[in-house]
Amino acid sequence: MLRIFTDVETGRRELLLRARAEESSLPEAVGARLKEALGAELEPGAAVAEIIRRVRAGGDEALRQLTRDLDGAEPAALEVERSQVREAYTRVDPALVSALRYAAERIRAFHTMHLPRSWMQYESGGAIGQIIRPLERVGLYSPRGSAGYPSTILMSAVPARVAGVDEIVLCAPPVDGALPSASTLVAADVAGVDRVFAIGGAQAIAAMAYGTETIPRVDKVLGPGNLFVALAKKQVSGDVAIDQIAGPTETLLVADETADAGAVALDLLAQSEHDPMASALLITTSLDLAKRVAAEIDARLPALSRGAVAAESLRRNGGAVVVPDLATALDLANGYAPEHLCLLCRDPWSLVGRVRNAGGVFVGEQSLEAIGDYTAGPSHIMPTGGTARFSSPLNVWDFLKVTSLFALSPEKAREVGPAAVTIAEAEGFTAHAEAIRHRQRGGGT
Amino acid sequence: MLRIFTDVETGRRELLLRARAEESSLPEAVGARLKEALGAELEPGAAVAEIIRRVRAGGDEALRQLTRDLDGAEPAALEVERSQVREAYTRVDPALVSALRYAAERIRAFHTMHLPRSWMQYESGGAIGQIIRPLERVGLYSPRGSAGYPSTILMSAVPARVAGVDEIVLCAPPVDGALPSASTLVAADVAGVDRVFAIGGAQAIAAMAYGTETIPRVDKVLGPGNLFVALAKKQVSGDVAIDQIAGPTETLLVADETADAGAVALDLLAQSEHDPMASALLITTSLDLAKRVAAEIDARLPALSRGAVAAESLRRNGGAVVVPDLATALDLANGYAPEHLCLLCRDPWSLVGRVRNAGGVFVGEQSLEAIGDYTAGPSHIMPTGGTARFSSPLNVWDFLKVTSLFALSPEKAREVGPAAVTIAEAEGFTAHAEAIRHRQRGGGT
Repeated sequence: MLRIFTDVETGRRELLLRARAEESSLPEAVGARLKEALGAELEPGAAVAEIIRRVRAGGDEALRQLTRDLDGAEPAALEVERSQVREAYTRVDPALVSALRYAAERIRAFHTMHLPRSWMQYESGGAIGQIIRPLERVGLYSPRGSAGYPSTILMSAVPARVAGVDEIVLCAPPVDGALPSASTLVAADVAGVDRVFAIGGAQAIAAMAYGTETIPRVDKVLGPGNLFVALAKKQVSGDVAIDQIAGPTETLLVADETADAGAVALDLLAQSEHDPMASALLITTSLDLAKRVAAEIDARLPALSRGAVAAESLRRNGGAVVVPDLATALDLANGYAPEHLCLLCRDPWSLVGRVRNAGGVFVGEQSLEAIGDYTAGPSHIMPTGGTARFSSPLNVWDFLKVTSLFALSPEKAREVGPAAVTIAEAEGFTAHAEAIRHRQRGGGT
Repeated sequence: MLRIFTDVETGRRELLLRARAEESSLPEAVGARLKEALGAELEPGAAVAEIIRRVRAGGDEALRQLTRDLDGAEPAALEVERSQVREAYTRVDPALVSALRYAAERIRAFHTMHLPRSWMQYESGGAIGQIIRPLERVGLYSPRGSAGYPSTILMSAVPARVAGVDEIVLCAPPVDGALPSASTLVAADVAGVDRVFAIGGAQAIAAMAYGTETIPRVDKVLGPGNLFVALAKKQVSGDVAIDQIAGPTETLLVADETADAGAVALDLLAQSEHDPMASALLITTSLDLAKRVAAEIDARLPALSRGAVAAESLRRNGGAVVVPDLATALDLANGYAPEHLCLLCRDPWSLVGRVRNAGGVFVGEQSLEAIGDYTAGPSHIMPTGGTARFSSPLNVWDFLKVTSLFALSPEKAREVGPAAVTIAEAEGFTAHAEAIRHRQRGGGT
């Protein structure tokens, strides 16, 4: 199953150069439903623009109509009631509830550790600094089906709560025509989500971005979703903040001859069972290890509940590259900038300082991504598609904003004013210069 | 000149509700030049896509051709040489050089104060944490004409340098067919920019996003620019990080009857001289003050070198609203979420805690925005158009990224693993669960 490349350049070209993601085409049934609902055959982008227009103009009534026409669902109410959340607990395995609570506490503890505070630097009786405050309200989206996981709700809502966001709302499509799944409702409750709305798709993103009678306007919209959700997030961006549009998940393992082939194989399989588009990659200094891992994968695939997905993912995007040394492995890894970078080799800590581009680095065989996905503490929402070159895993900064503080004392203003006058005049701004000079002459208090 | 609204609701509706910015239409000459260069009459978005395509395919040669055809310029070389930077110093007023150096030092000192560090939390012999590292390479853009200010180069390049970015490059269009302006070159040098390229427009953004033979690919593109530059930034976004697309600048002054009418008038004029689209707004508890400010503005306008711009801006977007109390003033200000919020009243510090949405808050009459634009220390690049609701002034975080660190000890993995297994199984991921169990059974080292 596992392709092995023993030539570094071929491996890089075949495995580590991502083709630019193309806009997926619509299944026919979806296209037909869209056409019926919107009254015209529209490209996905235009359909989403029309959905957003309708929600902005029609509010709750438009939301209900779109949910009927596009999702074939008719929720009794847009908002899920507290009693329905309580009832959801009775339909979820108590062991899962405990595990979610445990995970939430680990996530809370981790994100609390890097919560920044407002600060001021006093100088000459005045001060400059940063006022760091949480966003007032954020909106999470949790999709139906793949990517609509309870753990993902924890991984965004808990850091938002830690940041001090006043209100967290969640939109999730009804799964049986009425309510989001019980595990979605329980995860939202465990994570501290304040209000849940049984609504999905582009219309949910529009409702959170602009507000309706029932759904409050938020300051930031986050969460994974299908093509329509992603397009809607792009279109509302600027009127509201959005998170990154997530691409397929990816893991790159760096392993030497000391790695346990079973562990490596299982980590690659865990990655590839996510999604047929997921990428599970191995870079190793040992051809022997690569061969043993390939055999382990073949042996273990049949027992997996999602074995077909894993096999499809490995066939499309998976593989191993054999390299002469770990320095080459790290060079390849930094060039690829994986979402997850796992170091399974003799002295993994010694490689951490060479990691330049990765969403998360997993140090040693006990630090497996499958734990990082749930209970290690850091959020599992990480940059994909090579964007780890310039972006970060979700963290409390995603829910904070800065207001720069300027509070100059008269002495400080007299000290720093003259240079400002010089630059203002060079830039042609005479009112700027005069506004400063007016103070220097004693104007203002 | 200054419109005064004594009814709060009318003032809010007329002054404080921003119309959504529309895409500006092209001047005819620009359209004609585009058509000739690209061989077809294209909408701005399509023209930019074609320019990006040509730069990606043709590299330096395409850049030269586009610069010839679109800018009518023929720089001898794409890169500005060190000797040309040295020569630029001889064409700039030494007082300006000193003022820029002074400003750069203030900016450096401020941004150094909030430079975050990587951190780890050790637990049971392992650790979790955040590796915080600078981006490797960033690209700044400085436009010709309005918005192409030396101070703006300092306000982005100095924080990038503080963050530890390895290489900072700057693209700026040649102003006389050969080189960017002398003050641009000097500001870039003072700010610590490593390489300057004499190239402008959408083609410069494309070159920095994808790289050419001469211009290196960067991880993030920042800086103001015209419609083409903004569209190019949007189109390359995702392949490279971009900063926010800046809207027209805006200042909201909150003043009571104790404010100095001359200071208020000059601050409004300083704001409005930026740009005919700039917004200079006053919210005051004193109708008498508003009237005196209006008179001061009329008296001072004729003396300003950019008086016509200021008058146009005040006519379009400027004005005063009289409110019954400061609490109402702060409510209006938070609803508007201005780029700059200036507090000119008896006890300005007491209002700081009520500021929820603003790019920068200027406390008291000596803390005027005209100083904040140059020498106070915080960057003058701040969120416009109401985006202060959810975004921040430029700061060192814009040049940093996080890699989450997962380094579990065997003991910690045994402790946090079981809950992860429970959630993985509930989510249907059997390979995840098995990867964890394999370790718990003693697999891996």
